[in-house]
Amino acid sequence: MKVVIRALCLCVCFLQQCLGQYQPNWDSLDKRPLPSWYDEVKVGIFMHWGVFSVPSYHSEWFWWYWKGAKDTDLIKFMQRNYPPEFTYADFAPSFKAEFYDPNQWADILQASGAKYVVLTSKHHEGFTLWPSKVSWNWNAMDVGPKRDLLGDLAVAIRNRTDIHFGLYHSLFEWFNPIYLKDKANKFTTQDFVKTKTGPELYELVNKYQPELIWSDGEWEAEDTYWNSTNFIAWLYNDSPVKNKVVVNDRWGSRTLCKHGDYYTCQDRYNPGKLQNHKWENAMTIDKLSWGYRRNAPLSDYLTMVELTTTIAETISCGGNILVNIGPTADGRIPPIFEERLRQMGQWLKVNGEAIYGSKPWAFQNDTATHGVWYTYQKATDSVYAIVTGGKMPFGKLMLGAPNPSPGTQVTLLGYTGGPFRFDRNPPGGIAIDVPAIPASQMPCDWAWTFKFTQLAN
Amino acid sequence: MKVVIRALCLCVCFLQQCLGQYQPNWDSLDKRPLPSWYDEVKVGIFMHWGVFSVPSYHSEWFWWYWKGAKDTDLIKFMQRNYPPEFTYADFAPSFKAEFYDPNQWADILQASGAKYVVLTSKHHEGFTLWPSKVSWNWNAMDVGPKRDLLGDLAVAIRNRTDIHFGLYHSLFEWFNPIYLKDKANKFTTQDFVKTKTGPELYELVNKYQPELIWSDGEWEAEDTYWNSTNFIAWLYNDSPVKNKVVVNDRWGSRTLCKHGDYYTCQDRYNPGKLQNHKWENAMTIDKLSWGYRRNAPLSDYLTMVELTTTIAETISCGGNILVNIGPTADGRIPPIFEERLRQMGQWLKVNGEAIYGSKPWAFQNDTATHGVWYTYQKATDSVYAIVTGGKMPFGKLMLGAPNPSPGTQVTLLGYTGGPFRFDRNPPGGIAIDVPAIPASQMPCDWAWTFKFTQLAN
Amino acid sequence: MKVVIRALCLCVCFLQQCLGQYQPNWDSLDKRPLPSWYDEVKVGIFMHWGVFSVPSYHSEWFWWYWKGAKDTDLIKFMQRNYPPEFTYADFAPSFKAEFYDPNQWADILQASGAKYVVLTSKHHEGFTLWPSKVSWNWNAMDVGPKRDLLGDLAVAIRNRTDIHFGLYHSLFEWFNPIYLKDKANKFTTQDFVKTKTGPELYELVNKYQPELIWSDGEWEAEDTYWNSTNFIAWLYNDSPVKNKVVVNDRWGSRTLCKHGDYYTCQDRYNPGKLQNHKWENAMTIDKLSWGYRRNAPLSDYLTMVELTTTIAETISCGGNILVNIGPTADGRIPPIFEERLRQMGQWLKVNGEAIYGSKPWAFQNDTATHGVWYTYQKATDSVYAIVTGGKMPFGKLMLGAPNPSPGTQVTLLGYTGGPFRFDRNPPGGIAIDVPAIPASQMPCDWAWTFKFTQLAN
Amino acid sequence: MKVVIRALCLCVCFLQQCLGQYQPNWDSLDKRPLPSWYDEVKVGIFMHWGVFSVPSYHSEWFWWYWKGAKDTDLIKFMQRNYPPEFTYADFAPSFKAEFYDPNQWADILQASGAKYVVLTSKHHEGFTLWPSKVSWNWNAMDVGPKRDLLGDLAVAIRNRTDIHFGLYHSLFEWFNPIYLKDKANKFTTQDFVKTKTGPELYELVNKYQPELIWSDGEWEAEDTYWNSTNFIAWLYNDSPVKNKVVVNDRWGSRTLCKHGDYYTCQDRYNPGKLQNHKWENAMTIDKLSWGYRRNAPLSDYLTMVELTTTIAETISCGGNILVNIGPTADGRIPPIFEERLRQMGQWLKVNGEAIYGSKPWAFQNDTATHGVWYTYQKATDSVYAIVTGGKMPFGKLMLGAPNPSPGTQVTLLGYTGGPFRFDRNPPGGIAIDVPAIPASQMPCDWAWTFKFTQLAN
Repeated sequence: MKVVIRALCLCVCFLQQCLGQYQPNWDSLDKRPLPSWYDEVKVGIFMHWGVFSVPSYHSEWFWWYWKGAKDTDLIKFMQRNYPPEFTYADFAPSFKAEFYDPNQWADILQASGAKYVVLTSKHHEGFTLWPSKVSWNWNAMDVGPKRDLLGDLAVAIRNRTDIHFGLYHSLFEWFNPIYLKDKANKFTTQDFVKTKTGPELYELVNKYQPELIWSDGEWEAEDTYWNSTNFIAWLYNDSPVKNKVVVNDRWGSRTLCKHGDYYTCQDRYNPGKLQNHKWENAMTIDKLSWGYRRNAPLSDYLTMVELTTTIAETISCGGNILVNIGPTADGRIPPIFEERLRQMGQWLKVNGEAIYGSKPWAFQNDTATHGVWYTYQKATDSVYAIVTGGKMPFGKLMLGAPNPSPGTQVTLLGYTGGPFRFDRNPPGGIAIDVPAIPASQMPCDWAWTFKFTQLAN
Repeated sequence: MKVVIRALCLCVCFLQQCLGQYQPNWDSLDKRPLPSWYDEVKVGIFMHWGVFSVPSYHSEWFWWYWKGAKDTDLIKFMQRNYPPEFTYADFAPSFKAEFYDPNQWADILQASGAKYVVLTSKHHEGFTLWPSKVSWNWNAMDVGPKRDLLGDLAVAIRNRTDIHFGLYHSLFEWFNPIYLKDKANKFTTQDFVKTKTGPELYELVNKYQPELIWSDGEWEAEDTYWNSTNFIAWLYNDSPVKNKVVVNDRWGSRTLCKHGDYYTCQDRYNPGKLQNHKWENAMTIDKLSWGYRRNAPLSDYLTMVELTTTIAETISCGGNILVNIGPTADGRIPPIFEERLRQMGQWLKVNGEAIYGSKPWAFQNDTATHGVWYTYQKATDSVYAIVTGGKMPFGKLMLGAPNPSPGTQVTLLGYTGGPFRFDRNPPGGIAIDVPAIPASQMPCDWAWTFKFTQLAN
Repeated sequence: MKVVIRALCLCVCFLQQCLGQYQPNWDSLDKRPLPSWYDEVKVGIFMHWGVFSVPSYHSEWFWWYWKGAKDTDLIKFMQRNYPPEFTYADFAPSFKAEFYDPNQWADILQASGAKYVVLTSKHHEGFTLWPSKVSWNWNAMDVGPKRDLLGDLAVAIRNRTDIHFGLYHSLFEWFNPIYLKDKANKFTTQDFVKTKTGPELYELVNKYQPELIWSDGEWEAEDTYWNSTNFIAWLYNDSPVKNKVVVNDRWGSRTLCKHGDYYTCQDRYNPGKLQNHKWENAMTIDKLSWGYRRNAPLSDYLTMVELTTTIAETISCGGNILVNIGPTADGRIPPIFEERLRQMGQWLKVNGEAIYGSKPWAFQNDTATHGVWYTYQKATDSVYAIVTGGKMPFGKLMLGAPNPSPGTQVTLLGYTGGPFRFDRNPPGGIAIDVPAIPASQMPCDWAWTFKFTQLAN
Repeated sequence: MKVVIRALCLCVCFLQQCLGQYQPNWDSLDKRPLPSWYDEVKVGIFMHWGVFSVPSYHSEWFWWYWKGAKDTDLIKFMQRNYPPEFTYADFAPSFKAEFYDPNQWADILQASGAKYVVLTSKHHEGFTLWPSKVSWNWNAMDVGPKRDLLGDLAVAIRNRTDIHFGLYHSLFEWFNPIYLKDKANKFTTQDFVKTKTGPELYELVNKYQPELIWSDGEWEAEDTYWNSTNFIAWLYNDSPVKNKVVVNDRWGSRTLCKHGDYYTCQDRYNPGKLQNHKWENAMTIDKLSWGYRRNAPLSDYLTMVELTTTIAETISCGGNILVNIGPTADGRIPPIFEERLRQMGQWLKVNGEAIYGSKPWAFQNDTATHGVWYTYQKATDSVYAIVTGGKMPFGKLMLGAPNPSPGTQVTLLGYTGGPFRFDRNPPGGIAIDVPAIPASQMPCDWAWTFKFTQLAN
């Protein structure tokens, strides 16, 4: 009898494999190939938007630091500016999004050169940007904006751009009493997953068909509590986005950097060397916060030199970069973010050949000159050296990694002044003669890409 | 086999009966005797308090008439006074209860002569006056008062009075999307009951141990959907209030006036004749609303003549009377309500002998004189005729119901001027000589009670 | 020369007299006869309404006790309920008067039996209930109600009632910096009077033509600073209300109880004996405040026994009574006030014969029985004894003041049961046989008026 | 007699001249020499801050376009986002300035390279940023920020910088009823000037000692109505800033571009040619508004190329440039403004030699090459050609205006690569050989300054 059952099981397993069916365990799920679009697009925009955008102070973790960690600065901020007994929920009516124009957002996103976008459908505060069926009076349709913020952006993105649409979703909610009860029960009960976070995940996928799910808030409980593998198996097998959807690695206390379509490992993950598995560097333009901070001075925003450097580092090492901005409670992308995004778009227009669709090369960064990062395009067998740090080379540029062949040509992306002269370095590497290029002929600012064809290595 | 099972069942049933165990069906539940306190106390105070107390306009059904029925007057009221897109949830932060002093409330309630109180723990709006574990950000601790309004009243009532503490609870919630989904599914799903209204009922009982549960909002679905009989069986068998708790009759679309410890049948139910089953007249001092209405003019409040008349009618016919007042959003019992309650207390101080612990008499109202209502006290074999309508009799008061015996004495409650002379009416009944009583010796206003001892009938 | 000048002066004075011209000094102004209506009407309603109606806590002096006297309780009230740095001006937007229906107010006022009304056009806070031309952004049209509250009431009163319309006006404003500068200059400068309080007085009179001006806030400076005599001279000589206007006595630090058409002497002035000059008892139904207090319990409101007693005392001694109520920030007369006013109206309907148009009699209160107050009607040579204290006499009522003649008749106002028997008291006075009147024939509650005709004295 | 008086007058006039006394007429006032600091500093920052910063929509003329011009878009904006009957005054409580840090502002202003700052002490809305003694409840201390915004900035500026502190002040106030009454009287009355705008001007000068008064709102009435010449005469003769204060030309309906220390002529005045009288180009970084506009997209902000071009044009033609930014209602200088200001500072650090203390040269812009603007430094007899438009020249730069002498040297400000070779143009002018300068050696972006010494002309 046992034998028969086992045989049957094996048979079913085999059939599932044949039929492209994944089983709800990591062994099976991890076998699924990464949908190809994700690795090709390289650059995405992350947007943290929620009730935290109302105080827009400290960070999107405002609630936690105020009421959980009892941070002195936040307590004082509230005392100075709000009535006693004002609660976090009292912020929600001021989340009005009155200037929200998703088409304008889509235009800016497209101009940035990014190819995917990830919006916080629900952060740890539990407030949903869409009219969730199980988050009554704590969602953007019932309180505050009185609008399906998420759905409206999805439509605008899909109508006007070729950007892939993704959603961030927090599994846990800091102060949801149903979650807290499960937690107090050491996660032996699953009421929260069954009545709140689970239904919301399915609703999100069925209603908005995101191509990427950026899960978060997973760390306090095992994936078994979250029903993660069941959800992902459904996502891969049966969901309306089964063919293209991509998920990250935050699905339980032991999944980070281990399971999922791609790894995020930690916030602002930027390892500086090649990784074995597809990964993503989710980072912020405001160096200190994911949500909008009203009081962030200019010095807290990444400069374009810093941003282009991070892009080069990330792409060279096989990562995607997910650049975060924080919209405001009244629904705007502040001009300083718009400027950074549009400048990133200008830079990518010139240097995108080295980014989109590229693969890591044999070397990631140069052995002789600091701050030079490589990428590779298979179709044309070209190698790209991105010189970061904000200082355009002049005179001899010594690179240790590329070994020129007789047929090698060295050019500068966006510069029409012809290939540069170079010498093969005796011990290996190349010495390029970089001429003085008149400022008016410079193709871009902040970082510059030298392209090599027909290298010996 | 069948026979054995049936025998077993019967046996179990029998055991349950012996053990005082009730089964979750009406046949069994209806067999439970009414705890004696309820019929004895006769007079209670009902309090409707919630987010509807913020607009305090129209009625506690504000939300429904505004957004459900789309009542023109309410739509205009909102347009005139609030920003566009203001939602009902936006009222909640203004429910501050800053003047709420439960001890002061308890004093007023006690002074009213009432012996039980029923507070809306949650009305159809779904907002809970206690920190419900399954009503996150839609309860009085998270939003608005930031306080356990219900719990604080329970403590004050129990510390300072001998008043029985009861709770109103609405099974349904007009706009809760989980309920609406169950409803759309024709109540074949029970998500709402399992995750919201059910847990809340159990939490209420376990945490606050109410002696009365005034269920409501039941009419759209069968009691099977609401799990009502299971809940009541638990309440009778195992709950911490199993020995004293009393429930009304609103537990499913076909239970009204049919099942439960006592019947309410309809709002302001006042049948005017004896009923077969214990019942209650839940009525309002503001004739048009249960919740506080700021714009109610004096003429919308019951006069003391009207109120004492209703009390007499109700008690005579075997009912309890539950007199409703509406506290304000800032936590006060408005002086006009306080005055009515204190005047009711004065009246009951004089006439309570005819009310508390009384039973219906052979007659309810008099056959000869309109507006005279009878009650009976078994212990003293006394009959009481309450003369309502606001006009104190003078001269001959002809009553058709009481047949005097030689030993009969006729007195006026609260009047020390000795027994009145009377004549036996030849065809039956009695003719009392009511003297002119000096105003300064009148025992009370509004309604007067004649007491008969040793009647022939 | 001196003689000539004096003659000239006399001549001028004489001419002015002939022409009805008053000069701007008290000697002249005090000569003006009191317009007859004022003494005849006897009973008025005072209404304190303003920004203080928003907190509606403590009293209409909220601002002063909070920021001037730094009262601990008020400081705590603000800390508990409002954001830090919330100012008094921040209350103004919440003064919405959304339920304000001046016609409804007029109906209630008329039902009260009052014959004049006095509304606070501007209290010490400086906020004007009309669109003052010199109180920009601090008046009811610019902020809060967005409406000419005062003008709308004037129209309603005049359209629907025969009530005389009067206005309260505060000369000073606690915190107006222009006033404070004058004060710091020891009132050697008059900027405030010239630019604010003066223009407003003239504007009020010209625009709304009040028949009574209830001046206040005068005590910190001399009448010369306030330009009071100039204003009153204009009022008496040239204003549109010169023939009928009446003013009180609060026009400078030394005018109280000395100058003006009638004297107020102090708040709730009720001297208990005849006065040499026409006076008024301005008093409150809420014993502790003129402005609405949300948290006033029922016990803070005068009972009808207290109110009718005060009316009788005041009228007997030659005063008018000005009964104050406090409307709410949302524009209502709370039901408890409405009830008191309507009950006063019922009482005056029965007893008005002893009040309206009456004169003080030889005696004010009785010499033998406490709490009995007399009035007199010249036309019919009738004396009225108002028995206060809430206890209707029964049996012998001994009165020391009235000396009956053979033609004397003694009746009870509103009682149709015919004249009462009485005896002349040998030492003087009268002993009335008050029968037991059946409750249903009692003409009124709270206080009762015995009428005497053809008395010997 | 006449002769004597005339002689006396002349004598007095003469004395006044000798004593440095100016008379209150333009003939006299216009004779005063411009305090030297003003022409030397060249670059200032203008800041428009007020209640209009709360809606921060449309412009600082929000109130006027909404309620005066009844602009459809603004009416709709209000209907969509605010309750009916919301007034402009209702915005004031939301002007909180909670993040206002005047020291941080001072740091940013200093980093901008500007040498004077002009803050709106009071715009046409009449709301004063300081606790004006005659603007009760309509100033930043009584309502909103609860703080002397102006005074705090003055202190910070003077403590940390060498920036001259100036104040903008609007003579008229759109909706001040006292002004409107004067206007209705065709300015035959002066109540507004005497009680409001006049006292405020004197208070501002005495209390804050501004070195510049930027008057505005003058156009509806003559300078005689405004008492302008009296005020300026006092300012020049007796005020605490008499030696250094500078005023503009907006003092009456016929003074613009005619009287005052310097002329502004019109908003964003940039005539493009040399002017006879010192002037100023007051312009905005947000091209469409002086006050902060939340919804301004990046494209509404001047680019640095546009800004540096405008600076060059303005300074070349003898003007000062006053660059406007709009702080937010919560007290911040938005990062996009901070970035522009800091970039302007970087540019001025390199090119300031051509700006500060410069004089117009014989030519303003070049005759041969478009977009090249000249300035001159007397001390070193140097001429500066600022090449604007964002394109750094390369190869031959042909300039028509400078005629080189044998001793002429041509250098690029900030570039250490030595003097450039050049040729004298036969018909006049110079042809400079501009080499290809490596990007890393370029001294600045956006505009570049060529310096000429020992020119022949």
